Amino acid sequence: MKEQLTIVKVGGKIIEDDRAFDKLIYEFGKIAGRKLLVHGGGRTATKMAGLLGVETTMIDGRRVTDHEMLNVVTMVYGGLVNKQLVSKLQACGVNALGLTGADGNVIQSKKRGPIQGIDYGFVGDVETVDTLFISQLLLNGVVPVFAPLTHDGNGAMLNTNADTIASVVAKSLSSSYSVKLYYCFEYDGVLENPKDSNSVIRSITELNYRNLLTKGVVSGGMIPKLDNAFESLKSGVKEVVITSVDNLSDSSKGTHITLSE
Amino acid sequence: MKEQLTIVKVGGKIIEDDRAFDKLIYEFGKIAGRKLLVHGGGRTATKMAGLLGVETTMIDGRRVTDHEMLNVVTMVYGGLVNKQLVSKLQACGVNALGLTGADGNVIQSKKRGPIQGIDYGFVGDVETVDTLFISQLLLNGVVPVFAPLTHDGNGAMLNTNADTIASVVAKSLSSSYSVKLYYCFEYDGVLENPKDSNSVIRSITELNYRNLLTKGVVSGGMIPKLDNAFESLKSGVKEVVITSVDNLSDSSKGTHITLSE
Repeated sequence: MKEQLTIVKVGGKIIEDDRAFDKLIYEFGKIAGRKLLVHGGGRTATKMAGLLGVETTMIDGRRVTDHEMLNVVTMVYGGLVNKQLVSKLQACGVNALGLTGADGNVIQSKKRGPIQGIDYGFVGDVETVDTLFISQLLLNGVVPVFAPLTHDGNGAMLNTNADTIASVVAKSLSSSYSVKLYYCFEYDGVLENPKDSNSVIRSITELNYRNLLTKGVVSGGMIPKLDNAFESLKSGVKEVVITSVDNLSDSSKGTHITLSE
Repeated sequence: MKEQLTIVKVGGKIIEDDRAFDKLIYEFGKIAGRKLLVHGGGRTATKMAGLLGVETTMIDGRRVTDHEMLNVVTMVYGGLVNKQLVSKLQACGVNALGLTGADGNVIQSKKRGPIQGIDYGFVGDVETVDTLFISQLLLNGVVPVFAPLTHDGNGAMLNTNADTIASVVAKSLSSSYSVKLYYCFEYDGVLENPKDSNSVIRSITELNYRNLLTKGVVSGGMIPKLDNAFESLKSGVKEVVITSVDNLSDSSKGTHITLSE
C-alpha cells in the first residue's frame, strides 16, 4: 500500500486575511504524515503592484505579466508570501522549505505564446516536474512550500497558476504516494446557491458536474478548478476535496470530487 | 584529504550592475567541484524601499529593519534577487537552489537587542547552522544560493548580514570540506591606495593587518570583512580571498588573507 501524501493549495484571499493565515498554519501543521503546500498570493501582488505604480491587467482571471509585473510577483510570491509561510510553519515545528520551480529545477515551464491575440507575457505552462527531487525532500521529513512561479530553463522566471502547480505536483507524485489534494478557498465547499454559504454540495461526480454546468451552478473560476480536479483523479490522484481552511482537519466536510459514485 | 568546497559571497553593487551580474553567473558557473553562493542586495532593497515610500536608515553601514523594511528585504533578497540568481544559474547548467535561513531551518538567529541605545529592529545574529542539511544538498549536486535572511524559530524572518552568513556557513562546513571563501566586491582586492585600483595588496597576514589598521589603509566596511576573514581561518576555513568577480577564476589574483606568512 502506498504511503499517504496530503497536498494543500491555498489562494490569495486566505494569504491576505490574518485570521485565515494563522488558521492555515495551525490546521496544516496538524496534518499527519507527508505533506506539501502550494500557495497563491495574487491579491498581495496586486496591492504591491499598485504601491509601485505597476498596472494590473487581468484577462479571464489571468494576470498579464510583463517584465515589471514579473518582478512584482517574483518578489511577492517567491519572497514575501513564501517566507512568511515558511517561517510561521517552522515556528509550529513543520520543517518547511520554500521552492519556486527554478529551485533545484523542480518545475520547468514553457512561456505561453499569444492566445487569440492576447499575450499574457511571462506566464508559464508546466512541462516537467522533478518527482524524484520532491520525493527525496519528503523522505527527509521536509515539507515543500511551492510559490506559484516556475522557470523556462533559459534564465527567465515565469508566473504560473497555483491551482495548476498543485495539480501537476499531485499527479507526478501519485505513482509513489496515495495523494489527497485539497483546494482551500474562502467557502466550505462548492455552493449550490452562491448566496447561501450552508449550501455546500457534498460530492461532485463527472456525471453531475455536467448537470451543474448546464444549470449554471458552477461558473467562473470554479470551472478550471473542477476540470483540474477531474484530470488529477484520472491521472492517479486518490482524492480531491474543495474546502475551507477551517475544515482542513475534517475530511468529511467540503466538496468531494470523484470520477463516479 | 577533504574534498574542496568553494563559497562565493557577492554584494549588492555586483547584483545591481547588469554586466557584473552576468559576469558573476558566468564565472561562478565555471568553478569546478562543490560550490555555494551567498548574496547581498542592499542597494536593490534601498531602491525598492524608496519606491514604496519606506525610509532607509543606515547606522554604521547597518540597515535599521523595522516591520515595513523587513517586508522589503524579505521580498527583495528572498524573492527578486535570489530567484534571478537561481534562474540564471539554472540556465548555465548549475543546479541552484535558493535558501533563506528559514528554509529547512538551515540558519537560525536571535533577534539583536538594542546596542548602546540603538535598536536595529528585525536583525538576526546567527545561532545555529544545519551543516548536515547543507552537506546533503551539496552531495546531491545541488548548489545552495543563500539570501541574507534568517529566522528566529518563532515565526519572524530576520535581516542578516551576507558577509556573516558566508563566514558562518564556511566555518560550519570546514570540518567536512577544505573550504575556499571568496568575498567578491567591485575592486580587484584590498587597495593600498583607494584612488589607485591597481594597488591591490597581494596578501594580508594577522601581523601586517595591524599595521594596515594603524596606517589607516584599511577602514570602514573593510574592517568587519577582514575580522570575519581571520575568524574564519582560525575556525578551520582553508583560504579567504577578497577579489572581484572578474578574477574569480584566477585564484592567484585578489587579496589573500592568511594567519601567517
